[in-house]
Amino acid sequence: MSNSNSQAEKANLFRDLHRGPKILLLPNAWDVASACILEQAGVAAIATSSAGVAFTLGYPDGQKITREEMLAVVGRIAAKVKIPVTADIEAAYGNRPEDAALTARAVIEAGAVGLNLEDRIDHRQLVDLSLQLEKIAAVRESSRRIGVPLVLNARTDVYLLEAGKPESRFGETVKRLIAFREAGADCLFAPGIRDVEVISRLVRELQHPVNILAGPGSPTIPELQKIGVARVSLGSSPMRATLGLVRRIAQELQTTGTYKALEDAPSHAEVNQRLS
Amino acid sequence: MSNSNSQAEKANLFRDLHRGPKILLLPNAWDVASACILEQAGVAAIATSSAGVAFTLGYPDGQKITREEMLAVVGRIAAKVKIPVTADIEAAYGNRPEDAALTARAVIEAGAVGLNLEDRIDHRQLVDLSLQLEKIAAVRESSRRIGVPLVLNARTDVYLLEAGKPESRFGETVKRLIAFREAGADCLFAPGIRDVEVISRLVRELQHPVNILAGPGSPTIPELQKIGVARVSLGSSPMRATLGLVRRIAQELQTTGTYKALEDAPSHAEVNQRLS
Repeated sequence: MSNSNSQAEKANLFRDLHRGPKILLLPNAWDVASACILEQAGVAAIATSSAGVAFTLGYPDGQKITREEMLAVVGRIAAKVKIPVTADIEAAYGNRPEDAALTARAVIEAGAVGLNLEDRIDHRQLVDLSLQLEKIAAVRESSRRIGVPLVLNARTDVYLLEAGKPESRFGETVKRLIAFREAGADCLFAPGIRDVEVISRLVRELQHPVNILAGPGSPTIPELQKIGVARVSLGSSPMRATLGLVRRIAQELQTTGTYKALEDAPSHAEVNQRLS
Repeated sequence: MSNSNSQAEKANLFRDLHRGPKILLLPNAWDVASACILEQAGVAAIATSSAGVAFTLGYPDGQKITREEMLAVVGRIAAKVKIPVTADIEAAYGNRPEDAALTARAVIEAGAVGLNLEDRIDHRQLVDLSLQLEKIAAVRESSRRIGVPLVLNARTDVYLLEAGKPESRFGETVKRLIAFREAGADCLFAPGIRDVEVISRLVRELQHPVNILAGPGSPTIPELQKIGVARVSLGSSPMRATLGLVRRIAQELQTTGTYKALEDAPSHAEVNQRLS
């Protein structure tokens, strides 16, 4: 099938971008328009933000959205951009390995070539490492059986959830990420770390591509590249920044009654043409 | 039914806002998150932008999206905000009066209390005035039969389409809008006019609430209020302004490798709480 061939090629291209000479920059998208603008701006791949997608559809973050709704957005994006798309699928919308297998299949059917899988059981608690390894194995097996590769970005939320004592978090993060690496993850993701020394130690300990979540207060991209970070994503912050702009537009309209915050918009004709 | 009672109350409230002491300001929304932020910012009602909604779902403007997809977004928004919602439903997704009736019913079922109806037959041509009047009558009749009022914003695209000779456009606009007024439209909308004198003349000739599409280059809100404009909307420009911001975020990330464009974002916790 030429379609799954081309999807396989995209997956391999995307995997290679984790080991290229340049750091992989993934400012996350949340709908088709944001993905198209990012593609035009020259990013190498599109990573979705699950929180961003959930917010646009009226859900809070944390698997309140259904698998079907999340993957429908991913599918619309993958149908409209030429570059690889990787889907943030939270904890795979279920605690069983079968849920992870189902979600992996849905990701492939949506036309995406990668996924983020996080190790939470709900919004407050880390999942047992052994169960998370089964979920990773189920993703791998699902992709193998369908015959379309998936680039697996395995995430631990030890820092985000502030799990355990502060002094144990680095060790627990390394332990989990090494286990994910051995289970076949292509990239290892520990959101919530901003200290350049800690990130540098993490990269050295893991000896594998590492994804860092960046934003205001994080080391710059040149700094992250220098210490060997493979991939940087921005999470829901680009989507939330657009909400900040919407707020400024409304405030300006209601106070001075002017339109300065609207000035740096691509024209209707330009956006229309990109989406035609 | 208390539900349609409260929808009727919202419709009446929204209609009254066209005749209140303050000009009605409608910076348009395109998804639930943008609508919620606008509500928080204190707008009195939410007007959707059909182009904005279409772009987020990967369609160009101009009825390429289906009625069902458009109204699904309107429904999600109406379910999540307390203020009245009015739906931009383009030319009602069909050229027959029955299409307009169907769309009016779908608008009510989505929980919206108003709609914009434009007089195009496709992306380039004005519909015959007599057919447009039948469509308006069909909307009115549909709302009457269901028993839930709809605030009808009737739009002519004479200026946007640059229909006819330049010197005939004002007269044609007035002729159409007066006919729409007589057919029961609550508000009259002529996008594409930016000259304050022309707007002022239009308001005087129509003797009915008038909607102006504003943006950079338009008279300010105080100027529009002074000449008696009832309602100002921004079309897809707020949504396109967010795309401009996404572009700046990506460019900054790829050049200096910094995150300044992300600084004015509401926090994850704030957005999450609003949507919970």
